[in-house]
Order: sequence, then structure tokens, then C-alpha cells
Amino acid sequence: MRISRKPTGTKFFELFTEIGANIARSVDLLDEFVQAPADRRPELAARMHALENAGDDATHAIIEHLDRSFVTPFDREDIYRLAARLDDVVDHIDAAVDLATLYRVGDPPAGVPAQVELLRRAAALTAEAMPRLAEPQELTAYWVEVNELENKADQVYRRLLSELFNGERDALEVMKLKDVVDELEAAADAFEHVADAVHSIAVKEA
Amino acid sequence: MRISRKPTGTKFFELFTEIGANIARSVDLLDEFVQAPADRRPELAARMHALENAGDDATHAIIEHLDRSFVTPFDREDIYRLAARLDDVVDHIDAAVDLATLYRVGDPPAGVPAQVELLRRAAALTAEAMPRLAEPQELTAYWVEVNELENKADQVYRRLLSELFNGERDALEVMKLKDVVDELEAAADAFEHVADAVHSIAVKEA
Amino acid sequence: MRISRKPTGTKFFELFTEIGANIARSVDLLDEFVQAPADRRPELAARMHALENAGDDATHAIIEHLDRSFVTPFDREDIYRLAARLDDVVDHIDAAVDLATLYRVGDPPAGVPAQVELLRRAAALTAEAMPRLAEPQELTAYWVEVNELENKADQVYRRLLSELFNGERDALEVMKLKDVVDELEAAADAFEHVADAVHSIAVKEA
Repeated sequence: MRISRKPTGTKFFELFTEIGANIARSVDLLDEFVQAPADRRPELAARMHALENAGDDATHAIIEHLDRSFVTPFDREDIYRLAARLDDVVDHIDAAVDLATLYRVGDPPAGVPAQVELLRRAAALTAEAMPRLAEPQELTAYWVEVNELENKADQVYRRLLSELFNGERDALEVMKLKDVVDELEAAADAFEHVADAVHSIAVKEA
Repeated sequence: MRISRKPTGTKFFELFTEIGANIARSVDLLDEFVQAPADRRPELAARMHALENAGDDATHAIIEHLDRSFVTPFDREDIYRLAARLDDVVDHIDAAVDLATLYRVGDPPAGVPAQVELLRRAAALTAEAMPRLAEPQELTAYWVEVNELENKADQVYRRLLSELFNGERDALEVMKLKDVVDELEAAADAFEHVADAVHSIAVKEA
Repeated sequence: MRISRKPTGTKFFELFTEIGANIARSVDLLDEFVQAPADRRPELAARMHALENAGDDATHAIIEHLDRSFVTPFDREDIYRLAARLDDVVDHIDAAVDLATLYRVGDPPAGVPAQVELLRRAAALTAEAMPRLAEPQELTAYWVEVNELENKADQVYRRLLSELFNGERDALEVMKLKDVVDELEAAADAFEHVADAVHSIAVKEA
């Protein structure tokens, strides 16, 4: 008989679920941002920053709960690492939105909506996986799919770069837009790092 | 009496050996790529991508074997980390080749062959170390040498950057070439991260 | 009764203290560098490189001591990780100084002194924390403050970027200066990674 982790881990799983939902909201807001006219950007960037702060608060709540808990559902360091990596996702999305606003970049390159769509799918998978963390062995499909999305994101990103460098934009504008799409690419990588952290918990518990 | 790790770990050591050999092949192909005329690049980039896929398959085989194994030669998380870091090496080399092809960059800067030569030596050391993983304590020389190569790679990289920025190339061409040499520098760092993962196994087992 | 870690860990704590002091010295030198006229840069860069070498030596001394020690004050892998992350701090500062010298960049952007001041405060907190590593649970304030400094450093960095891109500099000069301030931003992140490594030791020991 396998002893359920639920009793000792309920609070952790609730907090991870909350963080997963917050990530999904931040990608929805990113989607709105890339479609919005430039004059709405400061307002949307402020809302994104509020989501980033909410994520920070939930991350700190996990760490404080870790400090107070005698029994934890997984190794303490694995909980800590998963929380830190989830935090990175929204950090990169917030950075992309913040830089696009500060730099007053022009319209995003044609490849950006495809990049955002892949983030949206990774966010949905992540948000669905978080409430199921108590059974990490059953999250193999999640891990495989996020890894496949990251491979697709790499391809979309490289095509985006070659579009950026096609000679239609001046060098400074290319540098600004590249900073923004680099942060979105880092967000796609960050989803993979979250999935790797989940997978490495599953491997340990096997 | 020290019990040999061989019986439980044979399959792991075989897979790591295969990955080491695949890395050495990918650096040989990189060497061919930087010397080849631009019209051969797409064909060589496709071959590199095939090596990258082969590496992915071997990495997944390690992870699947980990999922199925009750006894492992090292901690499960250390095997997992080493596999992930080896995978990064070919990913960066593949990215360099892919970007150079997509961007249709001109001739590589004069410092690139020296950068590739350092990667070739790090790859040879790594390929030699992998079949000897069962005795990680005896790999100190490997770890020290890869760290020294990484220090040299840093110096070569910075001289390469100052060559890139000497004013002979326009800003967009500098940005494209910098993306390529940054991926090669990341590959040199990735070899060091592999060696660190091996060293940290040796430290644990001491 | 809690058994003190002091007896088994004295040598480790001494080496970490030495590394903390070396980091503080390197940030003082960075402060001198950003205020110095361009013709003093090569001399100051050479002095920074000497500090970077001294840090490397202390890091290797920790690793050698780890190889020889039967009993360690924390898990071997945590000591190893903390040493590696401390090493990264000076590496990034050294890279910033080296690139600024090699590239012969003009005067630093107006935001750089604020960036250096935040590094100076993070370095002071880190140097103060290292002699107190034997009681990691008492370092919560250190961890919280370094995280706050890193958040401020992010904001300073982004304002610095928008200053860099305001159109007063040509694209190549922007790229060079961006490489330098990116290394300083990476140093701020590296201080946070050090604090995270300390915090994760505290979490484990809780």
C-alpha cells in the first residue's frame, strides 16, 4: 500500500496550484499585450507587474511553509527548486512586457503571436499539472509535452530572429525587439525547467 | 573491499559513452562547418540536427532506464543532471550552426577556429571520461583540464568579441555573428558544467 | 541540545569568509574602475583579474578540503554549490571590467554608479553572512535583503537599458556598453543565487 502524500502536503499543493493559475493568467495578459495598441502598454505592464508580485508572494508563502513544516511531501530542496523555477516563468514574461513598454518598440515581428501561443499551451499544461503534484509519476505526459513545446518554441524563435535580421529594421530597433523576444524564449525554457524539476521529483520517488 | 558499480550500472555507462562519442562527432562536424563554403551550410546543418536528435534519443533512453531501475550506480538525481548537461552541449553547437545558416553570415571572424579547437579538445576529454564514470574519483585530471580549457575559451571569446567590434562590420552583421559565437561560448561553458556534474558525483562518493 | 557545527567546519567557514572578503574587495575595485579615466583601465583590469584568481584559488581550496574531509558541516553537494556560486560573482565583475577595457567603451551610462552601489551593498551583506554560515537559520535577514537588492538591481538595469537605447549612441557603442552592463546585472543575479544556496542549506537543516 502506498501512503498518500495528501495529508502532509495539502498546503503545498494548494500553493503550487495557485502559482500555476497565476502563470496562466500572466500568459493571457501577455497575449492581450502583444495585440494591444502602444498607448495601452503602460497599463497592461502595470497589471503584469501585479501578477508578478502575486507570484512572488505565493513563492514566499511556500518557503515560509517549508520553514515551519516538519514533514514535507517531497524532499525540501525539491520543493524549493520547483517554487524557484515557477517564479522564473512570470519573471521572464514580466521582463518582456516591461522592456517592450520602456523601449517603445514598434509592432511586434510577425512570429511573436506563434511564440505566445506556445507559451499559452505550456502554461495550460503547467496549470493542469500543479494540482496533480501529489502523484508525480502520473505526470510523464505533461513533462513530454512541455519538452516538445520547448523544441517547437526554439524553432519559432530562430525563424523570428531571421525575420528580425532581414534588413527591414535599423540596428537599434532590432536590438530592442531581440531583447523582448529573448525574454519570451527564456520563458519557454523556464517552463521546460519547471517540467524538469517535476520530472526529477518523479524519478527520485520511483 | 570496494564493491564495483559495474554490475548495476553497465547500461548507464554504455549510454553515457554513446553520448560522449556523439558529442565528439558533433564537434568534428562543427569544424567542417566553419571551414565549408556558405552553399554547403544547409546540408551540414541538417547533419548536425540529426546528431542533436541522436543525442536526445540517448538522453531519453537514460531517463527511461532510470525510471525502470531499482538500483542505480549513483544517486538518481545525479544521473539525471549529468544527462541533461551533456544534452546542452550539442544543443548549443546545433544552435550555432543553425543560426549561422539562417542568418547567412559572412566568413567567420579569425578567432573562430581557435574557439572550435578548444571545443574539440573538451569534447575529446569528455568522450574519454564517459566510459570511466564507474570510478569518478579517478576523473580529477579530466575535471581540471576541462576547467582550464574553459578559462582559455573565455579569453579566446573576449578577443573574438573585440575583433568583432573593431568597426569593419556593420551593426547587424556584428549582431548575427555575435549570436553564433555566443552559442559556441555557451558550448564551452556546457562542457565545464558536465565536468562539474561528474566532479560533484566524485565529491559525494568520496 | 544542538551540537555545534564549528569543530568539523572551521576550515570551511574560514575559506568562505575569505571568499566573502575577496568579493567585497572586487566590488570596491569595480567602483574605482567606473570612476577612473580610460587610461587607467588596463591597470585596474589587471588588478581585478588578480582578485578573480585569488577567488579561484580559495574555491579550489574548499573543493580539495571537501575531498579530504570525512565529516562536513553541511551536505557535501551544498558546500560545493555555494562555492561555485560565490565564484560566479567575481567572474561576472571581472568580465564586465575586462570587456569595458577591451572594447574601449566611452563614459559609462548615467545609471551605472547606481548599479555598482547595489552590488556594493549585496557584497557587504554577503561578506557579513559568510562568517555566520555555521548558523544558517539566522541568516534569513541576509537572504531577504539580497533578494530585495536584486529586485532593485533589475529596475536600475532596465532604466539603464532604456537610457542606452535613447538614440544618442550609435548601435555598435550600444552593443558594447550593453555587454558590460549585462555582466553587472549577471553579478547582481549571482549574489541572489549565492543567497538562495545559503537559504536552501537553512531549509534543509530546519
